[in-house]
Amino acid sequence: MKHNYRLLLQYDGTRYNGWQKQGNTDCTIQGILEEKLGQWLGERIDVKGSGRTDRGVHASGQVANFYSKSQVEPEDMKAYLNAVLANDIHVDKIDCVPLDFHSRKSAVGKTYEYCIWNGDVKNVFYPNYMYTMEESLDLDKMKQAAQYLIGTHDFLGFSSLKSTKKSTVRTISDISIQKNGSQIIMQFTGDGFLYHMIRILSGTLIEIGIGDKKPDIMLDILEQRNRQLAGPTVPAHGLKLLSVYY
Amino acid sequence: MKHNYRLLLQYDGTRYNGWQKQGNTDCTIQGILEEKLGQWLGERIDVKGSGRTDRGVHASGQVANFYSKSQVEPEDMKAYLNAVLANDIHVDKIDCVPLDFHSRKSAVGKTYEYCIWNGDVKNVFYPNYMYTMEESLDLDKMKQAAQYLIGTHDFLGFSSLKSTKKSTVRTISDISIQKNGSQIIMQFTGDGFLYHMIRILSGTLIEIGIGDKKPDIMLDILEQRNRQLAGPTVPAHGLKLLSVYY
Repeated sequence: MKHNYRLLLQYDGTRYNGWQKQGNTDCTIQGILEEKLGQWLGERIDVKGSGRTDRGVHASGQVANFYSKSQVEPEDMKAYLNAVLANDIHVDKIDCVPLDFHSRKSAVGKTYEYCIWNGDVKNVFYPNYMYTMEESLDLDKMKQAAQYLIGTHDFLGFSSLKSTKKSTVRTISDISIQKNGSQIIMQFTGDGFLYHMIRILSGTLIEIGIGDKKPDIMLDILEQRNRQLAGPTVPAHGLKLLSVYY
Repeated sequence: MKHNYRLLLQYDGTRYNGWQKQGNTDCTIQGILEEKLGQWLGERIDVKGSGRTDRGVHASGQVANFYSKSQVEPEDMKAYLNAVLANDIHVDKIDCVPLDFHSRKSAVGKTYEYCIWNGDVKNVFYPNYMYTMEESLDLDKMKQAAQYLIGTHDFLGFSSLKSTKKSTVRTISDISIQKNGSQIIMQFTGDGFLYHMIRILSGTLIEIGIGDKKPDIMLDILEQRNRQLAGPTVPAHGLKLLSVYY
């Protein structure tokens, strides 16, 4: 008899090599969770995340699940993990879910946030949580450009994918762009995102904001599916996975 | 002929032993500024701050000044300092001011901020910038208590001062207490603050917020000038010097 445990967790990605394990000596969120859970449960544990976060990317609402032969109290498991994990990873909740729950395949949507420090004065605080840029951004143009992205489109032009065997069609249901002092926060909600998609969308919106591109370039990128037309892949540390929906 | 240079600077206090230099081998903001400026100007430099910030306390608007025999372009000095200082100290502005300007004595007011992470879920982000507490706070009671502090009072009961030779009368012109998600931000503006005063005011407001003390305890502490009646000195890392007024 196996049991399916679901974890809701947050991490500061600064000192990790991303979510996905890369070997025995890695420093990844998945690798560390599997190691700690394996030691406690006495079995090999395979933790599945809702999605990979790249090196340096943060999460305040990552979801993962794993199967175990052991039946343990979720509260005990949570207490154990929070005792043995470093301070920059925290398990907010663990519950038992039906066996067919899969953190990635069962997900119906996600929200990511990209945070920019946009001021003529440098900010010494939060260097690991914001992408810093001095050039001022025209938020109205960015919001106008974001509207072209809402809906169901082929987002291949906004991804770093080499192969295109799988579908690159995704649905973005909402993009909000807000200013809070010198911080600009862009939130993207959709049914799923391609490799580097949020960082390339953000990089393209930034180029539109500084006037290097026009808002309707979005239509060309979507239509031509051409990565070269889009903006740069902005740095990982500005990105955070906020929520996964089921 | 000497010149008086004024610096506006910010620092993340996390890895420093506070503002005030303590010897030759210290790691203090004042000590580092004096060392770097002395090397560049080729003379012994004595940097005066608007006030000491304790170990771990941050500043986004600290003001300092120093005299030098050298006449240099403020922009060049700023560029030099920002090139040689670590990333967690930044000089925002340097200007030449009249010789009688003194960053501490000329100051007519200051604003400090104390930041609390108040949620039933731990936050892995910003651990060095917020004091974390789980018990929920009654902001209305805290605001009510804060009103008793506004005005000119003897704040000895809210300080860690041993000696009372100098006046402990200060004027607080404003205290704002705001909630932003799980963050609670308390801002204190006044003509000056005694040693540990903001941290003890914050600790007392917190005890009122969790119901351990009544709002009108503030009147007793002010009247009796009794440190024992006030709340704890809450941790330094939640505190930030925002502005100094002249």
